[in-house]
Amino acid sequence: MIHIKVILNTLSALIIFLAISLIPPAIISWYYGGGDFNAFVYTIIASVSVGIILFFTTRNHKQELRAKDGFIIVTFGWVLFSLLGALPFFLSGFIPSYTDAFFETMSGFSTTGATILTDIEALPHGLLFWRSLTHWLGGMGIILLSLAILPLLGVGGMQLFKAEVPGPSPDKLTPRIKHTAELLWGVYVLLTVAEIILLMMGGMGWFDSVCHSFGTLATGGFSTKNASIGHYNSAYVDYIITIFMILAGLNFSLHYRALRGKPRIYFKDPETLFFFGIIGAATLFVTFSIWHQTSQDIALSFRQGFFQVVSIITTTGYGTADYETWSSSSRMVIFILMFFCGCAGSTGGGLKIISSLILIKFSLNEIKRLIHPQAVLPVRVGKVVVSRDIIANVAGFYLFYVSIFVFGVLFMNILGLDFETSLGGVAASLGNIGPGLGDLGPTDNYGFLPDLGKWFLSFLMLVGRLEIYTVLIIFTPMFWKK
Amino acid sequence: MIHIKVILNTLSALIIFLAISLIPPAIISWYYGGGDFNAFVYTIIASVSVGIILFFTTRNHKQELRAKDGFIIVTFGWVLFSLLGALPFFLSGFIPSYTDAFFETMSGFSTTGATILTDIEALPHGLLFWRSLTHWLGGMGIILLSLAILPLLGVGGMQLFKAEVPGPSPDKLTPRIKHTAELLWGVYVLLTVAEIILLMMGGMGWFDSVCHSFGTLATGGFSTKNASIGHYNSAYVDYIITIFMILAGLNFSLHYRALRGKPRIYFKDPETLFFFGIIGAATLFVTFSIWHQTSQDIALSFRQGFFQVVSIITTTGYGTADYETWSSSSRMVIFILMFFCGCAGSTGGGLKIISSLILIKFSLNEIKRLIHPQAVLPVRVGKVVVSRDIIANVAGFYLFYVSIFVFGVLFMNILGLDFETSLGGVAASLGNIGPGLGDLGPTDNYGFLPDLGKWFLSFLMLVGRLEIYTVLIIFTPMFWKK
Repeated sequence: MIHIKVILNTLSALIIFLAISLIPPAIISWYYGGGDFNAFVYTIIASVSVGIILFFTTRNHKQELRAKDGFIIVTFGWVLFSLLGALPFFLSGFIPSYTDAFFETMSGFSTTGATILTDIEALPHGLLFWRSLTHWLGGMGIILLSLAILPLLGVGGMQLFKAEVPGPSPDKLTPRIKHTAELLWGVYVLLTVAEIILLMMGGMGWFDSVCHSFGTLATGGFSTKNASIGHYNSAYVDYIITIFMILAGLNFSLHYRALRGKPRIYFKDPETLFFFGIIGAATLFVTFSIWHQTSQDIALSFRQGFFQVVSIITTTGYGTADYETWSSSSRMVIFILMFFCGCAGSTGGGLKIISSLILIKFSLNEIKRLIHPQAVLPVRVGKVVVSRDIIANVAGFYLFYVSIFVFGVLFMNILGLDFETSLGGVAASLGNIGPGLGDLGPTDNYGFLPDLGKWFLSFLMLVGRLEIYTVLIIFTPMFWKK
Repeated sequence: MIHIKVILNTLSALIIFLAISLIPPAIISWYYGGGDFNAFVYTIIASVSVGIILFFTTRNHKQELRAKDGFIIVTFGWVLFSLLGALPFFLSGFIPSYTDAFFETMSGFSTTGATILTDIEALPHGLLFWRSLTHWLGGMGIILLSLAILPLLGVGGMQLFKAEVPGPSPDKLTPRIKHTAELLWGVYVLLTVAEIILLMMGGMGWFDSVCHSFGTLATGGFSTKNASIGHYNSAYVDYIITIFMILAGLNFSLHYRALRGKPRIYFKDPETLFFFGIIGAATLFVTFSIWHQTSQDIALSFRQGFFQVVSIITTTGYGTADYETWSSSSRMVIFILMFFCGCAGSTGGGLKIISSLILIKFSLNEIKRLIHPQAVLPVRVGKVVVSRDIIANVAGFYLFYVSIFVFGVLFMNILGLDFETSLGGVAASLGNIGPGLGDLGPTDNYGFLPDLGKWFLSFLMLVGRLEIYTVLIIFTPMFWKK
């Protein structure tokens, strides 16, 4: 049974929340001018009206939220946010096509950061702020989802830590979530404020510091500048953002525990160590490749290599150099990193590091099992024994990820994109990264795609952001039975 | 414990077998001339001498073959065959580089069909025959392996049918294998003879008919003509070879049962049906794409599309048209087919159809499990319930396959090949297909690769041919312990 009233009631609350989130950009728009103020006001009025009417007509329900309702609320919540959040771009006329406006907003809320804009700096302050705010809100949503809701639904790598996040029985969704969410949002806000201050100390204006910090912590990637972070050409800014991208790519519950006085916790966590290992190896490879290829000194090669590697592996997508000009092997490394995304419980998208770690250990175990067919060989991550159900869930996730990826590439190919562009665009959308390969590289944009391609990639962003299962499950007949 | 004496004894028997197999091409060489006769004689003398000495010095063992020894014999057997089998090409001077000769021979024995030759028709008859014979012997070896040996070692999709192929306990290798092998080799020989006759009826000379039939049944792909099957420009030849490629891509134990009077068995087998389904869908797609793109009539488009699709999915690699000139989406379909190879128990390489089928059903089951967390949902293929151990084995296989593929592409990239060429070359080698993409397409050859690249791809052919585990297991420290 789907509980339609409680679903609509929750969604209406979300719509009202969206309307409230539109107030800060509206104020900025009013202050700076630029012709987008009315668009914000209209959107707020429309959202509030719809939200309030829906809220009060569905209020008197005696239904409790259950797992199935959760899948629907999460998926439709994200879609509704993007549908309504696109209105300011569209109504102001700065993005004249609604398809483009929706793509841009879904890219924001899904923390992807792929843009259809050719000249970002032509947008007024209000819209630029809203664009970055969609990232930040999307990131908040993801923390709530990945650390509190999805584990209860049985989706996502974080279920490994189910035991560590004591919550209600899997079939009832409300009570403890609020507390967990508040703690982790506290960490999220704290890190955002810290980055804003550090960027301003480096000479970046407050507006750009806020927008770029929103984009960093959410691992989003929307910049206020056409040349992304490369605009500042500053080692200080590059390294600050690199460090905060790494922080955003780590499990937020580790940050919470570290802030509570256990900073060494990072180095006891196998997922974090593996994450650092991959970043280290990839940075080394790319740095020497750039150094070898260009006349740049080693320090600049390292700075660029490190930034780009971290930007891709955390699924942020900021840029300070165009990796499309790098050697074929470095580009291949970047492409591979698109499939190793942030840690579970981070704001990063795609396949989580812990999933890859589990699958690698599982595969190695299969070889051992051939040598000792009778032995019992559990898969361990750190000291934790990973249950067979979790391995199956992760393996299934991986298979869906690869299948959707392959199908997506074929689809984009049919739409007329070349091989490399299709590969990069689909990997970047499904992994919520932003920049892809070929014609969708870091200096390009998604504006030239046919409309169908934009809707399709928007859908992939949603599917990737919600850990695949959450969206796919709604398309199964079994879900709607009884 | 590794039983070194019994291993060497078995390998020496294999060397003597190789020497015997070199007699037919030597006779052909003597009859037709061409300057390669001496090279055959030297190789035979060398192999017989080494083989006999080794055989008699290791004869007095009281050891029994066990699983571990099996892995070593299979892997080193294939390598030894390629090392010695390369000598006629090298000693005759027709392939002046030993690296090239080894690549060509490994490509033959692994039934890959990738060639380093620019002008195939410049080879004398003896070498051409030997080149095709390596395919045929490789195919024989694979039937023995995949239907008799590997299931006992716990490797490969065929273990699903373990129950159907009653054999000795997994730790003792000899008795029943011989009987199974003889029956299936009977089918193999029968099909080969049938194809030879049918091709000769279509006007092809006996020599080319034999060579092409060897290449078909082994799903190899070496042709005696520079333009491959396209040389004949005959609808009859194309369709005969297409049909026999399909037969070679099916499970040989089904052929055996069909020949015993149950021809409907194919349509009761879920793997076969899925295989036909993929061929049908891909052929349809490609046919319409060619038709749309060129001015060819629909019949020719279908003939070319059907041939190329079957050639790639069965991992044969014969060509009648250059798919590199096709639309981007058709090329993508060809690339995807490189990962859906023949059925288990066929001579096809790579990921078997049954594995994909199991993984697809498994993934769909994972979604069901989210909806009904308490339900017990076994994965079924046809009426058979697939055990969790087999699913784990297949999933591990798939993960290794993808990992080796990605690592291989990166490695080829570092060697200086472009993105598409690396993708195609590695997929074609690991899947034992032959032609790849980009600079390694159907009209190109592997000759221009650097030596390191040739050794690396030869290694991938071996790894792919022996179902990955068989080779990888030897590289684990655990294998050599105690």
